[in-house]
Amino acid sequence: GGAVLACSALKEKYRQVLLTHTSEVFWVYLSGSYELIHKRITGRKGHFMGAELLRSQFEALEVPGYGLHVDISDKPEEICNRIIFACMGKRTSVFGVFGLGVMGRSISLNIAERGFALSVYNRPDAGEEKVVRDFLDKNAWATRIQGFTNLKEFVDSLQRPRKILLMISAGPVIDSVLDSLIPLLEKGDILIDGGNSHYKDTARRAQRLTKQGLTFLGVGISGGEEGARRGPSIMPGGDPVAYGKVAGVLEAIAAKNKSGDTCCKYVGPEGAGHFIKMVHNGIEYVEMQLLAELYAVLRGQLSNDAMADILAEWNQGELSSYLLGITADILRKREGEGYLLDRILDSAGNKGTGSWSSKEALDLGMPGNMMSAAVFARYVSSFKEQRLRLSGGLSLAGRDLPLPDLDDLRDAYEFARLINHQQGFELMRMASVEYGWNLDLSAIASIWTSGCIIKSTLMESLHETFLKYGNLLEAPEIRSLLWRQESALALLLSHALQSRLALHAFSAAQHYWIDMTTKDLPANLIQAQRDYFGAHTYKRKDAPEGNSFHTQWGS
Amino acid sequence: GGAVLACSALKEKYRQVLLTHTSEVFWVYLSGSYELIHKRITGRKGHFMGAELLRSQFEALEVPGYGLHVDISDKPEEICNRIIFACMGKRTSVFGVFGLGVMGRSISLNIAERGFALSVYNRPDAGEEKVVRDFLDKNAWATRIQGFTNLKEFVDSLQRPRKILLMISAGPVIDSVLDSLIPLLEKGDILIDGGNSHYKDTARRAQRLTKQGLTFLGVGISGGEEGARRGPSIMPGGDPVAYGKVAGVLEAIAAKNKSGDTCCKYVGPEGAGHFIKMVHNGIEYVEMQLLAELYAVLRGQLSNDAMADILAEWNQGELSSYLLGITADILRKREGEGYLLDRILDSAGNKGTGSWSSKEALDLGMPGNMMSAAVFARYVSSFKEQRLRLSGGLSLAGRDLPLPDLDDLRDAYEFARLINHQQGFELMRMASVEYGWNLDLSAIASIWTSGCIIKSTLMESLHETFLKYGNLLEAPEIRSLLWRQESALALLLSHALQSRLALHAFSAAQHYWIDMTTKDLPANLIQAQRDYFGAHTYKRKDAPEGNSFHTQWGS
Repeated sequence: GGAVLACSALKEKYRQVLLTHTSEVFWVYLSGSYELIHKRITGRKGHFMGAELLRSQFEALEVPGYGLHVDISDKPEEICNRIIFACMGKRTSVFGVFGLGVMGRSISLNIAERGFALSVYNRPDAGEEKVVRDFLDKNAWATRIQGFTNLKEFVDSLQRPRKILLMISAGPVIDSVLDSLIPLLEKGDILIDGGNSHYKDTARRAQRLTKQGLTFLGVGISGGEEGARRGPSIMPGGDPVAYGKVAGVLEAIAAKNKSGDTCCKYVGPEGAGHFIKMVHNGIEYVEMQLLAELYAVLRGQLSNDAMADILAEWNQGELSSYLLGITADILRKREGEGYLLDRILDSAGNKGTGSWSSKEALDLGMPGNMMSAAVFARYVSSFKEQRLRLSGGLSLAGRDLPLPDLDDLRDAYEFARLINHQQGFELMRMASVEYGWNLDLSAIASIWTSGCIIKSTLMESLHETFLKYGNLLEAPEIRSLLWRQESALALLLSHALQSRLALHAFSAAQHYWIDMTTKDLPANLIQAQRDYFGAHTYKRKDAPEGNSFHTQWGS
Repeated sequence: GGAVLACSALKEKYRQVLLTHTSEVFWVYLSGSYELIHKRITGRKGHFMGAELLRSQFEALEVPGYGLHVDISDKPEEICNRIIFACMGKRTSVFGVFGLGVMGRSISLNIAERGFALSVYNRPDAGEEKVVRDFLDKNAWATRIQGFTNLKEFVDSLQRPRKILLMISAGPVIDSVLDSLIPLLEKGDILIDGGNSHYKDTARRAQRLTKQGLTFLGVGISGGEEGARRGPSIMPGGDPVAYGKVAGVLEAIAAKNKSGDTCCKYVGPEGAGHFIKMVHNGIEYVEMQLLAELYAVLRGQLSNDAMADILAEWNQGELSSYLLGITADILRKREGEGYLLDRILDSAGNKGTGSWSSKEALDLGMPGNMMSAAVFARYVSSFKEQRLRLSGGLSLAGRDLPLPDLDDLRDAYEFARLINHQQGFELMRMASVEYGWNLDLSAIASIWTSGCIIKSTLMESLHETFLKYGNLLEAPEIRSLLWRQESALALLLSHALQSRLALHAFSAAQHYWIDMTTKDLPANLIQAQRDYFGAHTYKRKDAPEGNSFHTQWGS
């Protein structure tokens, strides 16, 4: 967002050279007497310029009649402060962040830390009047951030074309923010929605802004508060030309993976960025549910610490993932005499993206049964009061059944995670075909290798897998792993049946795999039923593709 | 829709009396000579009027100078034909049906058979020019049906306020039909969508018509071709006053259940009728999937006829249902040397309502996992080519495993059906709360006792259950049945694990039941994870309701 150039530039004609490529120079003239400077020069060692050259320099000097003149006799801190203060007054930011919630604050600090001049805005609603002030006060180091509570001043503080990242809750509030922002913008300005908006809303908003000569980019951002601050995973979608103008900032603030690649890559047009983020969250729901189900199995017989030990060990190898790691942390977290986890109410909430992914699978004809299983498991948990009543006080079952072998558990877990990733990526592949987005699954896997909630060792390997096969089940080494591990999963599910535990997500993984590797399913009966009562017709195994048949079934 | 009044009305002043309450009299004068009539009178026996009174009658007669004059010397059939033909020219129908597809034709014949004067219309698109003509020709008995291919003539043939039932495919075509119909209608006219429209589209269309002084009713109709013809189950929703004006026809054509009640009852405002139909189809998807899964289990060891025998026996008792009955028929259906079912391709299609129900469950926070399981099972079946390849030619597994005891299978099936109905009705209950529809679940169960695809002995009992408990799981006798039967279901699922069969819907039933009767679920871990990475907060078991907590989890 700029540079500090310290140079002698004693004569006006030298200074004009500096203006050749930009008119936006903020001049600072460091003003000191011959005596003071001579004293300082003689005090320093190992520098090529000796004090004997100083006289000729002063003779050549043409003191500028413009710019900020600062007396160098002050302390260095004072001098810096004066310059910064003066700069702030006229500086234009290269980037704006609208909304200083948890994610907005974190991403603003991230941007500032990467050296970009930044304006931030938060609406001075009741109770939020001091949000901007507090934010700046708490982060005094971030002198490149200008704060605003006046929308016009915020917009005016930005370089053109303006780039404004909206960090506000998804939903209709985005539309009303657009209503107030659009009149203040100019042709070519770019708005970026960094929240979890629905991709269809994003496509609609992009069309709206296009009509006004503006651009709307839908950008998925994952990583939670910590990721946003230190380097999130970023999934930008929308107009590729506009993306090119914000890529510098977004790619700089994103996480870097082990190969040093930035975890921010343009994914596709329209709402593709938010679609990808939605699927990310769908995969995340399942990863969380699988861990919850493992916990349900293990806790009957193991202490929280013993469970944490197992997960922590798994987290050393190829099963390693961010979510596995934090689950071990959670299991160990003590509160007084006990464990905090044991005191948390078992009624899960959700923010909608898991449900959206499941609905998208339903719309696209994709058998994404793990995502919906994870969502429904959360839903059923929320009926806590009815559960308590219906349970008749039954406590945890299966406490005395021997646990499955830990190696089998591990294999079942690896199996289910593979199927989860297969379903998530298949959902994107089918959306790509349906919407003509030309998504690069391999690149998306790469975006998810760092910074996001579903980063894992498995994800690091998928870049290659999708490059070569395009589908997990088509990769011979994965397929043979699944064939080998399916019996371990069957053992786990059998244990669950005996222990009265509902393993929603593990079961869904098994069902998908079994059916995908089964030549003859009973769906012929369903087709017969549909033809019987609704004359929907059926196809035959012994007839050429495309031919439909109808039978008068009634006896 | 009118009456035939045969009377002497010899004098004009008598005839004027007949006009006191209506101006819509179509006069027919039966004209004959004294000689002919005298001959006929003397030829008949046991009538009070002797031939000696005929002279005075002729003297009193004032021959009308209007109306249709028909010579009675013709054959009675000829006389009737002349009158009917003349009537048709000016008759107004009490009801219109727009669209003569399978369902439109069936319901039109049903309406005509109940004695309503009816106009039908079908668009003379390419290939459909003769649809109306063929329909009338094939159903010459239905003289009360007037056919049209001109939309204005169709509309003009209807009594006001007009009542037009749209029997066309759901989707945007409905909107374009409205575009062409609305300009021809008058204030107070009523359009009825009898297709499987999405309930949100129905609510939107109702608002559109209301603005024009018209009414749009969304009416679910179930029963397939046969039901539509002989008596479907009808779920009307929308404006209750407008419904009152079409109730006469709809309730007359609907099925009657064993208590003699009509299976057509107003269910609620806005899109409630189509919502209920959507849930009907969601339940139907699951009922079909359960039968397909039973078939998958049994076919490894039993012939189609042996399976049909089992299902037919079940169909004698409390498990009896329309779908169970037709499944037995299907299993028995032969084609040449073999069974037709064996030759049908196992790749299931769908028309969307199962997916809609699943999505609605996702939207409403309802754990409707059986519906989505049934939908996803169809989806996965459609990947036939990939399945064939991945199966490596594996044929049906589990052929040599002993089948579970038939009583256990039966119990598992009853169990799963109960959970299916629980979920379907819970979905409606939650929608009713969310949308303020005030749905009467007991009345809806009653609508579904006859005429529809999911009619069953179980459904007949649910009227009472919902009246008393509002929720299947709250009914003590059902709850204790489920507690007794859950082990049978576990046996079936265990058999499926060993046989490499994916029982999507049976598993979902078990998961729901297990979780709903489990005091402590592992959802506390999910809440901890959400709080860890997203600061989503959690609630505690040991804190008052409503309080939220956040922990800095990081180590």
